[in-house]
Amino acid sequence: MTAHNSLSKKHQAWSGLFSEPVSVITQRFTASIDFDQRLWREDIQGSLAHAKMLCIQNVISAQDLLDIERGMAQITKEIESGQFEFSLAHEDIHLNIEKRLTELVGEAGKRLHTGRSRNDQVALDVRLYTRRAVDELRASVVELQKALLMQAKQNVHTILPGFTHLQVAQPVSFEHHCLAYVEMLMRDAERLIDARKRVDTLPLGAAALAGTTFPIDRDHVAKSLGFARIAENSLDAVSDRDFVIEVVSACATIMMHLSRLSEELVLWMNPRFAFVRLPDRFTTGSSIMPQKKNPDVAELIRGKTGRVYGHLMGLLTLMKGQALAYNKDNQEDKEPLFDTVDTVTGSLRIMAEMLAGLQTVPANMRAAAMEGYATATDLADYLVRKGMAFREAHEVVALAVKAAQEAQKDLSALSLKELQTFSGLIGEDVFACLSLEGSLAARDHFGGTAPRQVEAAIARAYARLSAG
Amino acid sequence: MTAHNSLSKKHQAWSGLFSEPVSVITQRFTASIDFDQRLWREDIQGSLAHAKMLCIQNVISAQDLLDIERGMAQITKEIESGQFEFSLAHEDIHLNIEKRLTELVGEAGKRLHTGRSRNDQVALDVRLYTRRAVDELRASVVELQKALLMQAKQNVHTILPGFTHLQVAQPVSFEHHCLAYVEMLMRDAERLIDARKRVDTLPLGAAALAGTTFPIDRDHVAKSLGFARIAENSLDAVSDRDFVIEVVSACATIMMHLSRLSEELVLWMNPRFAFVRLPDRFTTGSSIMPQKKNPDVAELIRGKTGRVYGHLMGLLTLMKGQALAYNKDNQEDKEPLFDTVDTVTGSLRIMAEMLAGLQTVPANMRAAAMEGYATATDLADYLVRKGMAFREAHEVVALAVKAAQEAQKDLSALSLKELQTFSGLIGEDVFACLSLEGSLAARDHFGGTAPRQVEAAIARAYARLSAG
Amino acid sequence: MTAHNSLSKKHQAWSGLFSEPVSVITQRFTASIDFDQRLWREDIQGSLAHAKMLCIQNVISAQDLLDIERGMAQITKEIESGQFEFSLAHEDIHLNIEKRLTELVGEAGKRLHTGRSRNDQVALDVRLYTRRAVDELRASVVELQKALLMQAKQNVHTILPGFTHLQVAQPVSFEHHCLAYVEMLMRDAERLIDARKRVDTLPLGAAALAGTTFPIDRDHVAKSLGFARIAENSLDAVSDRDFVIEVVSACATIMMHLSRLSEELVLWMNPRFAFVRLPDRFTTGSSIMPQKKNPDVAELIRGKTGRVYGHLMGLLTLMKGQALAYNKDNQEDKEPLFDTVDTVTGSLRIMAEMLAGLQTVPANMRAAAMEGYATATDLADYLVRKGMAFREAHEVVALAVKAAQEAQKDLSALSLKELQTFSGLIGEDVFACLSLEGSLAARDHFGGTAPRQVEAAIARAYARLSAG
Amino acid sequence: MTAHNSLSKKHQAWSGLFSEPVSVITQRFTASIDFDQRLWREDIQGSLAHAKMLCIQNVISAQDLLDIERGMAQITKEIESGQFEFSLAHEDIHLNIEKRLTELVGEAGKRLHTGRSRNDQVALDVRLYTRRAVDELRASVVELQKALLMQAKQNVHTILPGFTHLQVAQPVSFEHHCLAYVEMLMRDAERLIDARKRVDTLPLGAAALAGTTFPIDRDHVAKSLGFARIAENSLDAVSDRDFVIEVVSACATIMMHLSRLSEELVLWMNPRFAFVRLPDRFTTGSSIMPQKKNPDVAELIRGKTGRVYGHLMGLLTLMKGQALAYNKDNQEDKEPLFDTVDTVTGSLRIMAEMLAGLQTVPANMRAAAMEGYATATDLADYLVRKGMAFREAHEVVALAVKAAQEAQKDLSALSLKELQTFSGLIGEDVFACLSLEGSLAARDHFGGTAPRQVEAAIARAYARLSAG
Repeated sequence: MTAHNSLSKKHQAWSGLFSEPVSVITQRFTASIDFDQRLWREDIQGSLAHAKMLCIQNVISAQDLLDIERGMAQITKEIESGQFEFSLAHEDIHLNIEKRLTELVGEAGKRLHTGRSRNDQVALDVRLYTRRAVDELRASVVELQKALLMQAKQNVHTILPGFTHLQVAQPVSFEHHCLAYVEMLMRDAERLIDARKRVDTLPLGAAALAGTTFPIDRDHVAKSLGFARIAENSLDAVSDRDFVIEVVSACATIMMHLSRLSEELVLWMNPRFAFVRLPDRFTTGSSIMPQKKNPDVAELIRGKTGRVYGHLMGLLTLMKGQALAYNKDNQEDKEPLFDTVDTVTGSLRIMAEMLAGLQTVPANMRAAAMEGYATATDLADYLVRKGMAFREAHEVVALAVKAAQEAQKDLSALSLKELQTFSGLIGEDVFACLSLEGSLAARDHFGGTAPRQVEAAIARAYARLSAG
Repeated sequence: MTAHNSLSKKHQAWSGLFSEPVSVITQRFTASIDFDQRLWREDIQGSLAHAKMLCIQNVISAQDLLDIERGMAQITKEIESGQFEFSLAHEDIHLNIEKRLTELVGEAGKRLHTGRSRNDQVALDVRLYTRRAVDELRASVVELQKALLMQAKQNVHTILPGFTHLQVAQPVSFEHHCLAYVEMLMRDAERLIDARKRVDTLPLGAAALAGTTFPIDRDHVAKSLGFARIAENSLDAVSDRDFVIEVVSACATIMMHLSRLSEELVLWMNPRFAFVRLPDRFTTGSSIMPQKKNPDVAELIRGKTGRVYGHLMGLLTLMKGQALAYNKDNQEDKEPLFDTVDTVTGSLRIMAEMLAGLQTVPANMRAAAMEGYATATDLADYLVRKGMAFREAHEVVALAVKAAQEAQKDLSALSLKELQTFSGLIGEDVFACLSLEGSLAARDHFGGTAPRQVEAAIARAYARLSAG
Repeated sequence: MTAHNSLSKKHQAWSGLFSEPVSVITQRFTASIDFDQRLWREDIQGSLAHAKMLCIQNVISAQDLLDIERGMAQITKEIESGQFEFSLAHEDIHLNIEKRLTELVGEAGKRLHTGRSRNDQVALDVRLYTRRAVDELRASVVELQKALLMQAKQNVHTILPGFTHLQVAQPVSFEHHCLAYVEMLMRDAERLIDARKRVDTLPLGAAALAGTTFPIDRDHVAKSLGFARIAENSLDAVSDRDFVIEVVSACATIMMHLSRLSEELVLWMNPRFAFVRLPDRFTTGSSIMPQKKNPDVAELIRGKTGRVYGHLMGLLTLMKGQALAYNKDNQEDKEPLFDTVDTVTGSLRIMAEMLAGLQTVPANMRAAAMEGYATATDLADYLVRKGMAFREAHEVVALAVKAAQEAQKDLSALSLKELQTFSGLIGEDVFACLSLEGSLAARDHFGGTAPRQVEAAIARAYARLSAG
Repeated sequence: MTAHNSLSKKHQAWSGLFSEPVSVITQRFTASIDFDQRLWREDIQGSLAHAKMLCIQNVISAQDLLDIERGMAQITKEIESGQFEFSLAHEDIHLNIEKRLTELVGEAGKRLHTGRSRNDQVALDVRLYTRRAVDELRASVVELQKALLMQAKQNVHTILPGFTHLQVAQPVSFEHHCLAYVEMLMRDAERLIDARKRVDTLPLGAAALAGTTFPIDRDHVAKSLGFARIAENSLDAVSDRDFVIEVVSACATIMMHLSRLSEELVLWMNPRFAFVRLPDRFTTGSSIMPQKKNPDVAELIRGKTGRVYGHLMGLLTLMKGQALAYNKDNQEDKEPLFDTVDTVTGSLRIMAEMLAGLQTVPANMRAAAMEGYATATDLADYLVRKGMAFREAHEVVALAVKAAQEAQKDLSALSLKELQTFSGLIGEDVFACLSLEGSLAARDHFGGTAPRQVEAAIARAYARLSAG
């Protein structure tokens, strides 16, 4: 909270009925100008569209419109140049701008609020902001997908152990691994696109809650602001914050995905793994331990997951049990929304930049894939192809693994004779299955880790990004 | 947790490698059969589709398929008739069914698991369940919308005070108020439809995490199970729970909407309001206070909001920071999903039934609308139409309200002469604006509360429901 | 995020090992100076205690200590006067201060960090901050309790309907109602006191995670900073954020209590209730509706509940699944903590001020208590005292209420003859039970609403506040 | 949800006023008997204490008390033997037992509810349950602490790399690492003890919300049920669920700690680490991969963290914004509480058992500690002791590490001559600092990892457990 010494002596826009001014403590507690000044562009954009329509509908005069446009141009300049004095006494961005407008252009400024209320005005501003934010979020998602695809393409032949339960399961290619994240982000982008449809609705015209007595033309306003739909019900229009919740919920899932990628990066940077190297410019050191290069960025993204989850929970709590229509509680929608958008776009972008600089260490990945009997399933499948039922093959291989463990060897290091002690079905051709490359190549179907499948998947991913 | 005394002495499906059996405490802690037995239909459906494909692809024989089909038919009968013995020793629904199948049909049962893993099998089952659940949720949403529309149509001329800040703001019709909830639920239905697209993806074929070495035909399986898409990446397919989170998130918003409606019902049942009456069959009494009729159903729905919010938070926490691919943590996805679906469909349905029986008390609503100077904005708008700037009109009316308050009269009860002391612009025609009906009728634009607008909105809502 | 154009060209404290400087994007993303500059007093306080101990232990010289003290005095002045230039390039408050110290006093500044790490330093700073914050929170809780007790004392004879299910249950006094909130806040204060014990632990000496090789005297530092305990384990000391979670959790419950009080204030301000009047200085108006006086403060407090719940969830998520010891994720602990403390102290204080100005409207409360058959239980109890079993008395009274409802009368307005049709046990003395005052007076036991019990409760509450 | 075919035709306890029976759908939706039957012991215990007091106060006769005691003894037998028929028609455990009591003993059963309400009765039952649950939780916490201490004692000389940022930081002993968790659990136990004080309050006597007209003796009831305090305010007593939230919040922190330990166990089981071995009885296999031994228990505990976080969030949401006093919403308090207690005690116990069986692999830990320049800080500290300022020493060592990295050697493997190229202050005695054992031994202060300090810490921990 920054200090404000500009507490105006002037009355509020609504002070006629009041026998004493709002106390300073109340003013500070209820004012939103500290954070909603961020909506100044949206507020002016919405007011201009509203004024134009009022003029066309003959609610205000052509001169009024010209005055308003002139005043708003001036205010835009003042804010952009940092000269505009935001005042706590004028509560919020809407009144701050309206007051200044009236100072600049007189009567026309007092006519601007005809046929609307702050309730639909703030709903409009937040929707305009959110619509743009969704577009930026999507662009950042795509940026990260491209970085992942680039890594994938550079690591066609890099094999690492695929884990389940963080135990070695089966070998996979690093490109295939990268594509898993590309898929997660595809869904994230889809969710943003879907949420955008519900953001893209004009609330203006709902006025306080019931509509207005002026002959407004909502279609005209919708068109001039580029909205695809008009809110069907005025009570709903001023009290609906679903679109904020939906966007923040989509963001929570993005952060969940990033937390998984971050967890893996942190793990891969541990010297036991040393699967990847991050450029020094993305790591930080320790104030005490001279040898440290910490993957701070990944850790911090992982930590910021909680922040966005928290905002989602805060917004859901906020809206619980509110009687219709608008309640002041809703003022609490903006800070979590803004912070979510900043956090998620920031996290996506730095992750994209960092991945662009990431270097894999294929030798270490390969060494890890050679531990843990990653091709045991391949041996079981081999036996099935020779006629054994899968459940039996599974048992046979389990015993083979046990023996190999005792001998401290990989399956592929057992001799044919040793292998044949577990099943007579095993022949010379078994060794092809037991290599990492053989294992990969064998998973040759849509979605599998076989190199030619992954290459096709990369091509499809690029095509979807272009189409999207 | 129910007791199980059927702890089998038999080894698990995977016990070949293990030098001691799983301890009873571990078995109890890790088994999911207590809650995932609910997925038995989906599990059998998925297994049959998988087996058919394996047969077509010549991985299993036609006789194997016939045996599997025969065994599954028998198991279906056993479960439906309550004769199937679910055993903790077989961990989960998948192994319980597979074990029984092998008992019933021998070798073919042991071949069923060829080319798949429990990782993709459970992902498939949960998707099949969720897809059906989404359809049921949507149907329940529509049921409630219809009950609201029916109430709306019965209350075309019922006027109540529209509140903002729970203070009297402007009069609105009860039908308009009902339509606000219809709109909220429209978005809920849309969100479910959008989420369904991402549910409707076949994970089978991902096997453990990397795909399988058998020549599977995923298109065939997708077609036979009616999936619109096939998961693009095997690692993602087994670790993705986004669709669960997305559906639960959509459900959280539904509950938020229901909590608002419940809050209003509880308020309206308070004797100070007495806006509505609920049939006795939807109220409950007190063990001590003989006079009580409590709106328990509405309160309980409001309370259940927390339950669903909690499940959403639990699921997001669950997925945070998991390294790829499948981890056992994910077993925790099912209980919150099941409970969310049960809670939300149950809440929607009882709300729909209760609303169908709700009776409004128009006289009490009207009396409340006459308090609080609900038509003050109409007077300000009147002055604007007479040429005054809105900000000035607002001030003038504030003073008029203050005077009326002191005289303990409504604005419409002031004489023309009294009114003219506030502005010479006021004429005889002012009284038309100051009536509740006049106020409603004047809000005559798309989305406003004017009766003809609301009737059109009802017609549109019905059309959208039919189209949806 | 404010812009910083002071990006220093200088290397970080830890840059020796690094082949390229940290990128600007990483610097911006990982720096915490924007929000942790708030800890400057704690940082200096902790550094001085550390330096003093180092000097006593002969790790640094007396001259070093004098230099450090002189430098810190200078830095204090600079920060207090707004002259200190916080730089993003120096990451956080710790390095900003250390860098400046070294500029001011040279070598001694470079010795300050001997035997500690930022890991234990930041843990110390956050604990010092939190300990003070807890004390302020408690003071604010007491402030509100005093305002409630004052209201209680002014409303000894004010009777309002006690609600369960928001239905009229039994009459209670407004003073008794106020005391319910005093009790909630008593528990809140207790929880803060309990949490404080766990805050009050010195982490310094843990250094990075394992302790330090220097002969530190942790007892001395603990004493000079007033800590009651010393962290037992260095790994735990640097990674423990339980105390933050515990304080935020206690704050979440405070907000929950405030949300209940706010809900009631909003309800009581509705004209149907009109149980209370708030001074104009605590209400705000509408930009469009000239008649509105909105209880914005109460609504906003209710809305801010979500904010604090969200912070709690964010912090719990943050700490989930972190491998020991310190991880960068933990940097995300500060903003939710700071915002929680600001939000909760702010909400408590304005609520206390507002309650001090609140006026009850006893006539409206009484009128509401006369609706809804608030004394029906008294009639049932009367019958029990005459010998009827309670369950039967409950049934008899239910029928009497039904008859009274049909006659549109209160129970007390039925004649003796009418009452006797429900039970021959009813005599003339029944009417004493059926009055609001009779009902209150009869609940004459510890914790009951009888005036003499509530007065005793008020006295006890004051005594507990003085003792606390 | 289990099916109930015992829907009684009988009226509810409160049905006198009602013109139609509660609908089946409402009955199912509002009944709690499915989950609150678990409170049967508490319900009977509370009823007996209430009846005894009523008898002493001459509200019921000695014969009534005898009848009630006889009936309750019979009901206890019926429930214990599984013969009691719980009926949905009787809503909850309280009415189920009361109905049966009246069947068994007639009139006395109808007198039992004199002077109380279900509102205070359910509050009592939940408190009795929670008090016992807290004691069990504490015992389970201690059980796990003992398992950790046992591991600690067995690993006095086991050195592993202490991580910060999951990068090698400094060597620590495994016993020191175990003690970090012992400390976390100490705080958990303390929090439970503190929460218990607020659980341990008698609500009975609050009746519906205002107290009762009967001459009850709350002190007597408190004594006979062992409560330390009596609720001060009747409105608060029936609506307070703080104690549930506080216990669940303490449990959320326990789960957070367990999630960290689980994360480490999963990591240590990965073959790259192989720091520990778990007995086969605590691991499970794969349905497809024959070589797998998965640390399922640890993963599942980590996953269950979300479950408990979710319950906490659900409970906080539940209580938000409720007007006083009791509302039906509160029925939603029990399921999350029960599930939390079951989940947390279950997780603590299996973790304790598993840790008792865990075997460390010191050689692998040591190998990992030799990577990553874990003793770099020791070298810097060495230089400080030789007179260099810490910041400079930090820089010097950073350069030494860089050189060692390029030479692919540990610092201790550099020759004295090589080391002296970085600083002339380095002498032969440096090598003592550069060994793992030297590094540990040097951190010889309260809370440090030096063996003699950790041994003392173990002794203190045992003493605290005995004292606790």
